[in-house]
Amino acid sequence: MAATPAADAQLDNYERVAVLAAKDAGAVIDAAFRKEKNIEHKGAMDLVTETDKECEALILQALQDAFPTHRFIGEEGSAAQGFTSELTDEPTWLVDPLDGTTNFVHRFPFVCVSIALAINKKVVVGVVYNPVMRELFTAVAGRGARLNGAPICVSRAAELGAALLVTEVGVARDDETIGAIFGRMGALTKQMRAVRALGSCALDLCSVACGRADAMFEVGFGGPWDCAAGALVVLEAGGRVTDVAGGPFGLMARRVLATNVHLADAVAAVLREQPLGPREPQPPA
Amino acid sequence: MAATPAADAQLDNYERVAVLAAKDAGAVIDAAFRKEKNIEHKGAMDLVTETDKECEALILQALQDAFPTHRFIGEEGSAAQGFTSELTDEPTWLVDPLDGTTNFVHRFPFVCVSIALAINKKVVVGVVYNPVMRELFTAVAGRGARLNGAPICVSRAAELGAALLVTEVGVARDDETIGAIFGRMGALTKQMRAVRALGSCALDLCSVACGRADAMFEVGFGGPWDCAAGALVVLEAGGRVTDVAGGPFGLMARRVLATNVHLADAVAAVLREQPLGPREPQPPA
Repeated sequence: MAATPAADAQLDNYERVAVLAAKDAGAVIDAAFRKEKNIEHKGAMDLVTETDKECEALILQALQDAFPTHRFIGEEGSAAQGFTSELTDEPTWLVDPLDGTTNFVHRFPFVCVSIALAINKKVVVGVVYNPVMRELFTAVAGRGARLNGAPICVSRAAELGAALLVTEVGVARDDETIGAIFGRMGALTKQMRAVRALGSCALDLCSVACGRADAMFEVGFGGPWDCAAGALVVLEAGGRVTDVAGGPFGLMARRVLATNVHLADAVAAVLREQPLGPREPQPPA
Repeated sequence: MAATPAADAQLDNYERVAVLAAKDAGAVIDAAFRKEKNIEHKGAMDLVTETDKECEALILQALQDAFPTHRFIGEEGSAAQGFTSELTDEPTWLVDPLDGTTNFVHRFPFVCVSIALAINKKVVVGVVYNPVMRELFTAVAGRGARLNGAPICVSRAAELGAALLVTEVGVARDDETIGAIFGRMGALTKQMRAVRALGSCALDLCSVACGRADAMFEVGFGGPWDCAAGALVVLEAGGRVTDVAGGPFGLMARRVLATNVHLADAVAAVLREQPLGPREPQPPA
């Protein structure tokens, strides 16, 4: 279906507003990154900071002002603020105001804002902004992916043995899940050059999109707000985004595998053989 | 033993020359970081780049010009260039011109120059410079550690459950060693908040020194040039540096555990229980 000029202009506007919101929130994050922080505990391992809340309010306001009829899905939002937990065909923003909260607390520079817009359950705009490194990843469906405005594409590595993997150890700490997490990581490491763990799902995806890494997977991250924008950035950079087992990617499934086109099947084949932990999410139906 | 003014001036000079050499090499790395690279393969998993060689020649020249009687230990150096493989009591420079070569090839920003001077087998000056992030870590024995000139100190995290671990998966890919690597990582992850793997031993150490991470360990890295400077930076930042099993640190042992003072025993206790891979280095005698 060819895009109409009106639809094109609308996509431009969605991207423009999302980028402005990400940069405004990013400025708050960058300023706070260098200060002492007040940390609240949420469960055993999760951290939310004041900055997270401030950024979410700021992004929500910007998006609601520009698009008052749109819906929102995010980690912290309540129904009273216009948030929903279900993805419908309606235009819906998936927002993570601060991905990499543990990094933020520890002052590791891999933190970002992630903002995506889904229409008819398809992501059409993705914006991931790391304000500490000053890296803005953007993608619009059908128009390619960019880093600070310059087009990016995935790597050309065609052999697992020459490929760099990015993944995360997650937050579950029971024996069975730890076994599953390190079983997967070990099985892939055995065949790959090296492994990195940076602590941000959205930035891991963008690492694949710009060719810094050749593959990333994660199972059981927080929610669709962590992966929606980054997944579009990978696709628009010429990469593949699937379920961890190789089937279709499910935006709500909390499972993602992103690679260049050459490695997708080989990585999925290894991951498909590995058992899941008892509470890890299954492949989407 | 109190330092004499003459000895103090000499330490100043060692540090000054090492910092200049690290910055010169860093400028070469930073420029090359943004370009296409010619990569040679060394064994299956190791990479050496032209930049690595250029930086080593540059650093060697600077140190030999300033200190013609000193010895050198490094990854690439030959005996003809004044390199030795044995650490003696003589003043000896331990140089890694480019730590994080895989990151360099993939354009991950965690790359650095590492330069240390050992006298009487003790490291007295350590310089680690990440030219992409513009971060210069320096330490002189007895004078504290600095990041870009400002004093740094290790974190105050006193509980494993609130602590961030940094480690690496190394280069061995046989089943037994992969089992050992991920056994260690899993055992610690079970008790800790999160794990990062950044791909540079020297920068992992500096992450602990400046409190971004609370603990790091690595077994079987390339050689003393990877850890000598970073280990002094940790010590001078108020941290602990020991063997992975908790005994005394061996500069030549290719094993290191670095933590803040609170976590040293707890981390070593976990690691002591974990089996080594068949070719992984044993604790120093």
